[in-house]
Amino acid sequence: MSDSAHAAHGAPARNLFGSRWVPRPEHVCELDLGEALPGGFRAAGVACGIKHSADADLGLLVCDSPAAVSAARFTASSTAAAPVQLSRARCELSRLRAVLVNSGCANAATGGRGMEDAAKTQGAVAVAAGVGEAEVAVASTGGISQYLPVDKMLRGILQASAQLRVDGAGDFQRAIQTTDSFEKRANVEVALPSGSVRITAQCKGAGMISPRFATMLCFVQTDAALSAQTADLLLGVCVKRSFDRCSVDGQLSTNDTAILIGSGASGVVIEPETEDELVFGQALDALLRSLAIMIVTDGEGAGRIARVLVRGGEVGGDPLAAETVARAVANSPLVKAALHGGDPNWGRIVQTAGAALPGPAPLALDVSIEGVAVCAGGTALEVDERALARAVQGPEIEYEIALPGEGCETEVFFSDLSQDYVTLNAEYTT
Amino acid sequence: MSDSAHAAHGAPARNLFGSRWVPRPEHVCELDLGEALPGGFRAAGVACGIKHSADADLGLLVCDSPAAVSAARFTASSTAAAPVQLSRARCELSRLRAVLVNSGCANAATGGRGMEDAAKTQGAVAVAAGVGEAEVAVASTGGISQYLPVDKMLRGILQASAQLRVDGAGDFQRAIQTTDSFEKRANVEVALPSGSVRITAQCKGAGMISPRFATMLCFVQTDAALSAQTADLLLGVCVKRSFDRCSVDGQLSTNDTAILIGSGASGVVIEPETEDELVFGQALDALLRSLAIMIVTDGEGAGRIARVLVRGGEVGGDPLAAETVARAVANSPLVKAALHGGDPNWGRIVQTAGAALPGPAPLALDVSIEGVAVCAGGTALEVDERALARAVQGPEIEYEIALPGEGCETEVFFSDLSQDYVTLNAEYTT
Repeated sequence: MSDSAHAAHGAPARNLFGSRWVPRPEHVCELDLGEALPGGFRAAGVACGIKHSADADLGLLVCDSPAAVSAARFTASSTAAAPVQLSRARCELSRLRAVLVNSGCANAATGGRGMEDAAKTQGAVAVAAGVGEAEVAVASTGGISQYLPVDKMLRGILQASAQLRVDGAGDFQRAIQTTDSFEKRANVEVALPSGSVRITAQCKGAGMISPRFATMLCFVQTDAALSAQTADLLLGVCVKRSFDRCSVDGQLSTNDTAILIGSGASGVVIEPETEDELVFGQALDALLRSLAIMIVTDGEGAGRIARVLVRGGEVGGDPLAAETVARAVANSPLVKAALHGGDPNWGRIVQTAGAALPGPAPLALDVSIEGVAVCAGGTALEVDERALARAVQGPEIEYEIALPGEGCETEVFFSDLSQDYVTLNAEYTT
Repeated sequence: MSDSAHAAHGAPARNLFGSRWVPRPEHVCELDLGEALPGGFRAAGVACGIKHSADADLGLLVCDSPAAVSAARFTASSTAAAPVQLSRARCELSRLRAVLVNSGCANAATGGRGMEDAAKTQGAVAVAAGVGEAEVAVASTGGISQYLPVDKMLRGILQASAQLRVDGAGDFQRAIQTTDSFEKRANVEVALPSGSVRITAQCKGAGMISPRFATMLCFVQTDAALSAQTADLLLGVCVKRSFDRCSVDGQLSTNDTAILIGSGASGVVIEPETEDELVFGQALDALLRSLAIMIVTDGEGAGRIARVLVRGGEVGGDPLAAETVARAVANSPLVKAALHGGDPNWGRIVQTAGAALPGPAPLALDVSIEGVAVCAGGTALEVDERALARAVQGPEIEYEIALPGEGCETEVFFSDLSQDYVTLNAEYTT
């Protein structure tokens, strides 16, 4: 139901570093979400009538610095939505100055008309913000197969551009959400050796979540001065370690988009291969990983989340066996239902691994749950069943799997499968 | 929850040809399920105490003809259960005379002890039935990681062998079930050019269902006289077109097993490449496809089933793009939840196809639902939304997808995703 036209109703944002899996890096200081965006940025969010609910549905982000640099990642889907196709084909992704985002309509499966509609809104933002068309990225989320209400959006763009404010991140955030039950935002100060910089981010996602090389929607702003190459490198690495490692329902969206823009307003320059770059990268990494875990935590109907950590080498000709197994476990409805029920049913992990790596050879895998070894070499171990049952009642559960061999280690964060997920997704369109 | 120790409570079997997707072949006549097994076969089912419920949990099938021929298919899982490993490694699969099946314990992830336990029960059946050990196949279904209660089973084998009867198919059927809500059995007479033969089958499965090259448990008996090669060929082809084409939850089991035994008692000989072989093959095909659809219909919590039919050629370097998309659609929780809700949400089909075939090129796919074209070349068509919504309220829904190119056509039968599936699978072990 990330294809939903529903609006989230502003539950407060969560603590950015609320998960045990992402500790706050030493040099990162969390700031109040109500504070201004990093220098050089303004944002707004308005309700222009895309959503029937009259909730905010159009967000505009502008970087006032002509020297802005940027980087972007998009869904790997071959049925990518029009805004993704347009941004990829017609934007200068290394020097974006503005991002237009709408919720309530994905503008996907809309063919040539969808591309034209997206182009019209892109052009309108260019005019309203005084930047080049190729410097305006567009992003959408909502129902697939519906067309954008372009006239409403053009009015919305005018309204939003008049409301652009340095403290507009909250309005922007609310405008990009659909079924999110809480805000997924970040606002931090990072103490680099060369000086302090700010990073803010706004993110949405709750269903149709299994990004590959991109995320659901996530927009990151920093006042650090960094080259386009550095921005691209850092965003690429951090997306791979965050949004690319999470799954709510194994369903890659048509609209996933992640965009990082740097204004340089702080005057703090991040040179490649310096301690500055390292510390900044650690901060961005922690920030995106935290936001990714928030998405999983807010997975539609989710009550409990998990991390599956898989190590091992080539199995049955699959050099990425660990990756194959990690994805399979994270997307198994049986594992996810057991997670939901607080059931330490590790037999389903063995079953899933065996199915993901078919072949006659008995797979000698080890499995631990919350540090309790339950299976060694493919065979059940004696365990204290009651202690194990208690261990899987918490909000975050960790499964560790060791496959034969060495060379690969990977992780996937995932949500459980609940009755509410089904209810949300069975009763949507009609 | 096919890993369940629960017993099914004998709801009556369904009409064998109840689905529009499998019409009854002309030469096939359905017989009463209470009738005797084909000549040469006896079966029994007893409660030996594996299940806590005291329901039947041990089934024994014996072919009294020393000239019996057979064929078998097993799960492709690399964490195959001990009975699968034992049957594959130590049986003469082309001349099986007996099958021992237990429910209530999968004997999976049980290592060397699991193999020994399975071997003990195999040996006991050989003695009790007066056949060679290598002529006894074993099969199990139930909870993974539990050990067989061998002593109870040895007593059960004695009891069952004393109760073997030509009309024991019903007892055998009930002993092999777990979460099945109705019996999946077949009993037909087939009019071959050379004379009439009988085919009976007993089958179980409701969850952890996505067989590849095998099924959940299915045992087929015929009094036709056919060579081991013919039996293997026919079982192989028919399994590929039936159990290999169905999915409840995309979860390949550790225990899938399909065994066909021919007694030859009818005296009707099926020579290769004859009209007899063709008609017999058609009958076996229809029978296994019907049973496969019954499994999907009985998918845990299922209220509605679907067939996705995909045609097309190579896409993005994937020569089996149609197969990739068919599996992805059948296993998408979003598509399955929409199916459950009677929601014609075809945007999720476009999304799933795009995710299954990642790549930058817009995927020009056509989609129809119940014969209504909703998407052409990747773009939404004008449709009568109310008529479409009515069309997806029936018990069997058909999705057709055309990918670019030609050369491959495939189908997958699948069940919906309901709140009850989650409930069944979240609250199982504990």
